[in-house]
Amino acid sequence: MPTGEARRDWRHTLHTVIFEADTRAGRAFDITLIGLILLSVLAVILESVSGIRVRYGVELQAIEWAFTILFTIEYLLRLISIGRPLLYARSFFGLVDLLAIIPTYLSALIPGTQFLLVIRLLRILRIFRILKLAQYVVEAQSLVLALNATRRKIEVFLFVVVTLVVIIGSLMYVIEGEEHGFTSIPTSIYWAIVTLTTVGYGDISPSTPIGQALASVVMILGYGIIAVPTGLVTAELMRKPIGPISTQACPACSADGHDADAVFCKYCGERL
Amino acid sequence: MPTGEARRDWRHTLHTVIFEADTRAGRAFDITLIGLILLSVLAVILESVSGIRVRYGVELQAIEWAFTILFTIEYLLRLISIGRPLLYARSFFGLVDLLAIIPTYLSALIPGTQFLLVIRLLRILRIFRILKLAQYVVEAQSLVLALNATRRKIEVFLFVVVTLVVIIGSLMYVIEGEEHGFTSIPTSIYWAIVTLTTVGYGDISPSTPIGQALASVVMILGYGIIAVPTGLVTAELMRKPIGPISTQACPACSADGHDADAVFCKYCGERL
Amino acid sequence: MPTGEARRDWRHTLHTVIFEADTRAGRAFDITLIGLILLSVLAVILESVSGIRVRYGVELQAIEWAFTILFTIEYLLRLISIGRPLLYARSFFGLVDLLAIIPTYLSALIPGTQFLLVIRLLRILRIFRILKLAQYVVEAQSLVLALNATRRKIEVFLFVVVTLVVIIGSLMYVIEGEEHGFTSIPTSIYWAIVTLTTVGYGDISPSTPIGQALASVVMILGYGIIAVPTGLVTAELMRKPIGPISTQACPACSADGHDADAVFCKYCGERL
Amino acid sequence: MPTGEARRDWRHTLHTVIFEADTRAGRAFDITLIGLILLSVLAVILESVSGIRVRYGVELQAIEWAFTILFTIEYLLRLISIGRPLLYARSFFGLVDLLAIIPTYLSALIPGTQFLLVIRLLRILRIFRILKLAQYVVEAQSLVLALNATRRKIEVFLFVVVTLVVIIGSLMYVIEGEEHGFTSIPTSIYWAIVTLTTVGYGDISPSTPIGQALASVVMILGYGIIAVPTGLVTAELMRKPIGPISTQACPACSADGHDADAVFCKYCGERL
Repeated sequence: MPTGEARRDWRHTLHTVIFEADTRAGRAFDITLIGLILLSVLAVILESVSGIRVRYGVELQAIEWAFTILFTIEYLLRLISIGRPLLYARSFFGLVDLLAIIPTYLSALIPGTQFLLVIRLLRILRIFRILKLAQYVVEAQSLVLALNATRRKIEVFLFVVVTLVVIIGSLMYVIEGEEHGFTSIPTSIYWAIVTLTTVGYGDISPSTPIGQALASVVMILGYGIIAVPTGLVTAELMRKPIGPISTQACPACSADGHDADAVFCKYCGERL
Repeated sequence: MPTGEARRDWRHTLHTVIFEADTRAGRAFDITLIGLILLSVLAVILESVSGIRVRYGVELQAIEWAFTILFTIEYLLRLISIGRPLLYARSFFGLVDLLAIIPTYLSALIPGTQFLLVIRLLRILRIFRILKLAQYVVEAQSLVLALNATRRKIEVFLFVVVTLVVIIGSLMYVIEGEEHGFTSIPTSIYWAIVTLTTVGYGDISPSTPIGQALASVVMILGYGIIAVPTGLVTAELMRKPIGPISTQACPACSADGHDADAVFCKYCGERL
Repeated sequence: MPTGEARRDWRHTLHTVIFEADTRAGRAFDITLIGLILLSVLAVILESVSGIRVRYGVELQAIEWAFTILFTIEYLLRLISIGRPLLYARSFFGLVDLLAIIPTYLSALIPGTQFLLVIRLLRILRIFRILKLAQYVVEAQSLVLALNATRRKIEVFLFVVVTLVVIIGSLMYVIEGEEHGFTSIPTSIYWAIVTLTTVGYGDISPSTPIGQALASVVMILGYGIIAVPTGLVTAELMRKPIGPISTQACPACSADGHDADAVFCKYCGERL
Repeated sequence: MPTGEARRDWRHTLHTVIFEADTRAGRAFDITLIGLILLSVLAVILESVSGIRVRYGVELQAIEWAFTILFTIEYLLRLISIGRPLLYARSFFGLVDLLAIIPTYLSALIPGTQFLLVIRLLRILRIFRILKLAQYVVEAQSLVLALNATRRKIEVFLFVVVTLVVIIGSLMYVIEGEEHGFTSIPTSIYWAIVTLTTVGYGDISPSTPIGQALASVVMILGYGIIAVPTGLVTAELMRKPIGPISTQACPACSADGHDADAVFCKYCGERL
């Protein structure tokens, strides 16, 4: 029984350190982890630069393996210390934690192919772990709330944009044709998105007068269209912050619309 | 008489299924239709990719014809089941339904020409039918209302933009000239639109110092100009939500539009 | 005396027709004028297209001269019919009216030079006359008012943007150097404006890692910077529509913040 | 003692002239300084244009030295006249004043190297001094305040953007590969920033179908993302003007921040 309790205590302490940031040890653990993650991401990015890969390829691969083993131990400790390991493993951050260690092992099992080299680079996904930072930032929530509230309007907007882009792309394919770079409808849709979002690479651009005229209409259309998501997000961000008005009504005069920090009714002076 | 009534009933049932989405059969019909439309659009898009057209061209044309015949039957049923067929045929969705079947027949009547291949692609316009989805989305209406309310302001704005673009285009044609890619005023106007909307393909770009200086002014101008439609749409989207106007009507004069904190009617002085 | 009065009447009638749009004749005159201006602008634009100029150059020049003579007569009639001709001649629209006829005469006086051909194109400036349309659109005023109200803030903003652009341009000139297309500080400033306004032609783009890193910072900076004029214009457009709040205080309870259409105090019910 | 007092007076007068713009002499000094700074910046910019450097290089270098000596004297006078010279030297404008004179001396001490030529151009940093103008513009403060208030939200936003850009860049490196211009993850991250900010140079652009599909998603994502900083700044700029908060302090508890329509203090219930 005391052994069981001690074990429970050990797991509890581990849980506090790994999953919570309130204690000193937990905070130190999280800050160390963020540092290690940033370093490991930096190693992956540096390895992708051919000049660095040629000179320090072996060292960077060693660092990569060291980080992967460290993060694997951390992942196992998380599974052990938590009450419901399966729930954690299936959660967003559980999956991200797993995805952050898999690519290295995959690159070891299947050796020496060109395709593998491509998969190896997917290890950069471990940067998702840094997103844990966002958990501690309260401000992030108000942004997410505002974006969530406008989700349905944005979905309708996206539907209209996708429809527009398919029609515009098809029209341009017909007008400009395969000889002017609009090789297929998917490519023309890609051009339409590049234009409507005002990115404008210029890898594909209309060269016939009719094509340039239609492109001009699309660009001016994009002007108005870009205003819609901005308007939606702005309107949503302003809705709540404007008045931190409580729903409390005055017990004497039943007036409402009081500020959240009001102690007395601003109309009749009664204590709220 | 009973036959006539039965026939009316048959037409009524058909109408409910085809035109309305409230009943179970109507809903099933609409969802099936959306699926078929998406599939037919996909077939047209795939046909435009030369690699796929070479291998599956015959199959895709067969699918295309199957969909066209299906949509033609659907179009005829709509004409039969509705009370006023002409009114439907002339309406926006009636025209879209017709435009969604015409291109296939057109490609059959006039065989084997290069020009026809271009017309055949216009069949993608049948995707307009998907717009029927928007009818079911309530959120779309508030967006349309907001854009409608700012229509006159946006028209004034578009007029100013068009004027600016014609003048800037002509100036650049004079400054840069035909040897630097500004081959005509229409082409220069196209460049001005590409620049003012911040798309910036780079297919035409100023190379003389004076041209680059004018382009810089145009770009900074575009900065301010892009703010106008965004401001208009945002202001319109916010107009209603901001006013914490109560829905309460005055018991004496039945005036509404009172502030949430109003105690007395602001028109007749009656206690609310 | 009656002759003088008749003459005054003649001038008065002319003034009403030319300068005002309230009467039937005045309205007809204005609509005709707008049509003629659009046609003359179209002729100038068409003349700039080399293919059309070769075939219809003589006819277009004849049309151009016909329009110029017509607009010259109109300009003289405006000078005669108005009370203070000098005030009109010096006003914005007076100058625009003059600039709309000068280029044709200039092209006639100095014959056959390449430079002249360039000046001849400046005739497009006569499109400024279409701006008269804006006088009739009431909505334009609210836009102009909103932009005017934010003028000082926008000036501060433009000053910061110009400063940023000069510093960023100079830094990029030092980092990338003349061999990577950043041939001088003015050219680099042009690049900085192209980047900060998110136009991004791609005619000049960084190729060194440090240059690309600085460019990335500039682009993300441009993200935030583009938000400022949008925010300013939106805030201004919303200011008035939000609350048409009168400055009137209640004579009984001296409460203020009443709506502009309030007849009674919303707090005490007293007649305002 | 009178000598000391006279000396103090001399320093005080100097301080008023140099540091303050309230007196006539101070204003004249500031306006002269701004003119000189603009001229010196112009000289540096002109020197960077190779055509001008070849012809007027010697004259421009002489002007540069003249300005540098003048600004050095001014910097020394500032150090002498101010009460706490060290505090000034460490302040933002103190450092800017110093940075505005150092590059010229550096270019003299270490002669004739290619690297020096690069440092010489950094002298343009003296344009920072023009920022002093902003001190006098009251409007600038409200902009700075609004941007400061949203700083934390913008930091969260920037963190999300950086994370997104690293992941998208890595994915594109894997998908497109080094043979399509995505030579390394840093280069791909640069591409992701160019795309997400809608700059779109086109120096690097996806050429595989999967790459173009991912780029399309990134661009549409950029649509929504660009709305966030705009929304934040707009919401902040509107916050104050909207809140009709009175400047009235409670006579009992001296609390302020009451609504314009408050009759009683919302904290202590005292009649306002």
